[in-house]
Amino acid sequence: MADNALVFQSDFGLTDGAVCAMYGVSLAVDKDLHIFNLTHDITPYNIWEASYRLYQSVEYWPEGTVFVSVVDPGVGSSRKSVVAKTKNGQFIVTPDNGTLTHIKKNIGIVSVREIDETRHRRKNTEYSYTFHGRDVYANTGAKLAAGKITFEEVGEELPVEEILELECGEVSVSEGAVAGCVDILDVRFGSLWTNVPREEFKKIGAEFGDKVEVEIYNNSTLVYSNSIVYGHSFADVRIGEPIIYVNSLYCMAVAINQGSFAKAYSIGTGAHWKIVFKKLPQ
Amino acid sequence: MADNALVFQSDFGLTDGAVCAMYGVSLAVDKDLHIFNLTHDITPYNIWEASYRLYQSVEYWPEGTVFVSVVDPGVGSSRKSVVAKTKNGQFIVTPDNGTLTHIKKNIGIVSVREIDETRHRRKNTEYSYTFHGRDVYANTGAKLAAGKITFEEVGEELPVEEILELECGEVSVSEGAVAGCVDILDVRFGSLWTNVPREEFKKIGAEFGDKVEVEIYNNSTLVYSNSIVYGHSFADVRIGEPIIYVNSLYCMAVAINQGSFAKAYSIGTGAHWKIVFKKLPQ
Amino acid sequence: MADNALVFQSDFGLTDGAVCAMYGVSLAVDKDLHIFNLTHDITPYNIWEASYRLYQSVEYWPEGTVFVSVVDPGVGSSRKSVVAKTKNGQFIVTPDNGTLTHIKKNIGIVSVREIDETRHRRKNTEYSYTFHGRDVYANTGAKLAAGKITFEEVGEELPVEEILELECGEVSVSEGAVAGCVDILDVRFGSLWTNVPREEFKKIGAEFGDKVEVEIYNNSTLVYSNSIVYGHSFADVRIGEPIIYVNSLYCMAVAINQGSFAKAYSIGTGAHWKIVFKKLPQ
Repeated sequence: MADNALVFQSDFGLTDGAVCAMYGVSLAVDKDLHIFNLTHDITPYNIWEASYRLYQSVEYWPEGTVFVSVVDPGVGSSRKSVVAKTKNGQFIVTPDNGTLTHIKKNIGIVSVREIDETRHRRKNTEYSYTFHGRDVYANTGAKLAAGKITFEEVGEELPVEEILELECGEVSVSEGAVAGCVDILDVRFGSLWTNVPREEFKKIGAEFGDKVEVEIYNNSTLVYSNSIVYGHSFADVRIGEPIIYVNSLYCMAVAINQGSFAKAYSIGTGAHWKIVFKKLPQ
Repeated sequence: MADNALVFQSDFGLTDGAVCAMYGVSLAVDKDLHIFNLTHDITPYNIWEASYRLYQSVEYWPEGTVFVSVVDPGVGSSRKSVVAKTKNGQFIVTPDNGTLTHIKKNIGIVSVREIDETRHRRKNTEYSYTFHGRDVYANTGAKLAAGKITFEEVGEELPVEEILELECGEVSVSEGAVAGCVDILDVRFGSLWTNVPREEFKKIGAEFGDKVEVEIYNNSTLVYSNSIVYGHSFADVRIGEPIIYVNSLYCMAVAINQGSFAKAYSIGTGAHWKIVFKKLPQ
Repeated sequence: MADNALVFQSDFGLTDGAVCAMYGVSLAVDKDLHIFNLTHDITPYNIWEASYRLYQSVEYWPEGTVFVSVVDPGVGSSRKSVVAKTKNGQFIVTPDNGTLTHIKKNIGIVSVREIDETRHRRKNTEYSYTFHGRDVYANTGAKLAAGKITFEEVGEELPVEEILELECGEVSVSEGAVAGCVDILDVRFGSLWTNVPREEFKKIGAEFGDKVEVEIYNNSTLVYSNSIVYGHSFADVRIGEPIIYVNSLYCMAVAINQGSFAKAYSIGTGAHWKIVFKKLPQ
């Protein structure tokens, strides 16, 4: 029965025993569970990042996989605890605080249920108010992954439309230009990952090898303005040279080969970090 | 037979191949072992932290789980290598250097045995003097988790009273006040975790929503003195506001909601970081 | 059939969803695969480190274990994607960019095959040019670990002699002295790990407890020159005292007990960081 993987994400870090306590609670449900980590290095309280990291990885996992995401600044408030089922049949156990934004928008959620804490909270934890990750989410996720409860037994169904969504930046295409925003950084390599899909970018008519004009704004302040080569991958440019490329989620990205574009130009992320790609006359 | 999880803790970090070598040695004992990490980010040589992180997580794991903790500044000295059995039937493989302090004091150890290196050291490692984690502890822990040896076959029994213990701060209750110390930080969120149990704190008669006077001393120097709300969880106070709460181990903690109390007031940890909670006249 | 462990290494870090996507792809091949991490904290683009960390851990794993190492600054270039089989029967899936240097030199590679991307690239990833780790390496490694393909089915055999090797520092022994270089740091503890094997060091005739003269050069600049005790392990010297010892790979290392030798004297790594051990007159 313990056929489905259980995957954890949080902003707890791995320095203390919190994540290990969640593992233990899960294995107490079923010793044979297969447990994995997405990441525990979400910036504390950063729901946007949590949402994006799910978007970046959930769809590669088999149907039936259960994700438990605990970035929960509102623990103890009236925010709901839910389990969402994606279009491809994975489950996400999470506070309903915006963590489902990107999955809902880009992949699809077919159903969502509120966790019935009277049945799925760990026994004897009624004086524990600050660690729902251990006492509610890990416990519920483990039962679901182990097949000890069905999705229907999680609790009452909620309307999918009511899932809380964070505001995402818009993408707009005009004559020879496409505009969007910098959604997130490929932290380790300093690349900018934008919300502009490859399909939209293609409308400006740039081919591999072409130079494309890139403008980046922090609100209305112009922060970067230069032309950059559009390439397949880093190997298409010299070390230290910038490049526009299609990232692993099929959106447009900007990087410096073996350097950090984000650090070089002090670029941040969010809907107010706008980026415009313009076709240059060849 | 490989029914029991094997859980590693160390101060090695995960940047090099040391932890991976311990995994490999364990799987060479039994390919089907289920291996997990508590943490490998213990501050180098910090036995107190190692002891606390075991306390924070061991009890949530099933009976029979084997923990291997390698924070071992005395490697190569005469410090003993032992396996302790907890009251709940988990095992801890560790140098006897204080790592068992919190488990012994707060959870209970029913038996301890010294590892017989003539039988449980990896073959052909007689010239390796600096990596007992790989050559002795992982190897012994794996054999025990895999059921290849019993606890009795680890080696000679030692008196539980002789397990080395680090000094812990005292908790004292007087009329309307309870005093203890800051045991450790919830590193990621900057909260202070004290050694004052919820049960002792309740004796000062504070109710949720009351303000409580908090004084913090570094030795005899007063470092913080102000009144703070006692709440269920962060959601009970505004963002940026301090709060006293019961942590996930049912001890008293002090935090700033979405800020770092430890950084805000440069608070450290240890028996010389004293904290006093006093009931205020309502 | 899913009998063999699958072990990942990369320079991706664990902060985003990239590693988790590789896990998902692997489990989509076989849900029962046992997945582990070597490390994902290789310094970005640092092939030398990737090579060394494999050397530090591969040989402890059972025959049949499959390692996937993705440190791939040349992704998208003409560098080959290969699977190497070690003398002990482990497999390493990697770009052929020098990552196999230490394993080839110190352990032995018996056969190497080029990955046939027409058969082993994930379906529908033809527009993904920057994440071979997910689309080619994880997918191929998972199939091999799960027994869905044999080593022979990876692709065409290549001559082992043609595997790309990075330049390693030389070790030379003269009358009463042995010279080598600082290969890498034991990062967490600040120890210098040299390329001088214990067997070569023994030729200068030093016994445990002897003082040995140590000179360290950055190119031709003398950076350190002092005599240090040769001991079994840190417990042989006082806290804060330097020590020469045999590391866990049976090469000579230099450390400060509970301090950082590398930080204390600003020592780096590479073939141009030369170290000389000289027997002192006793």
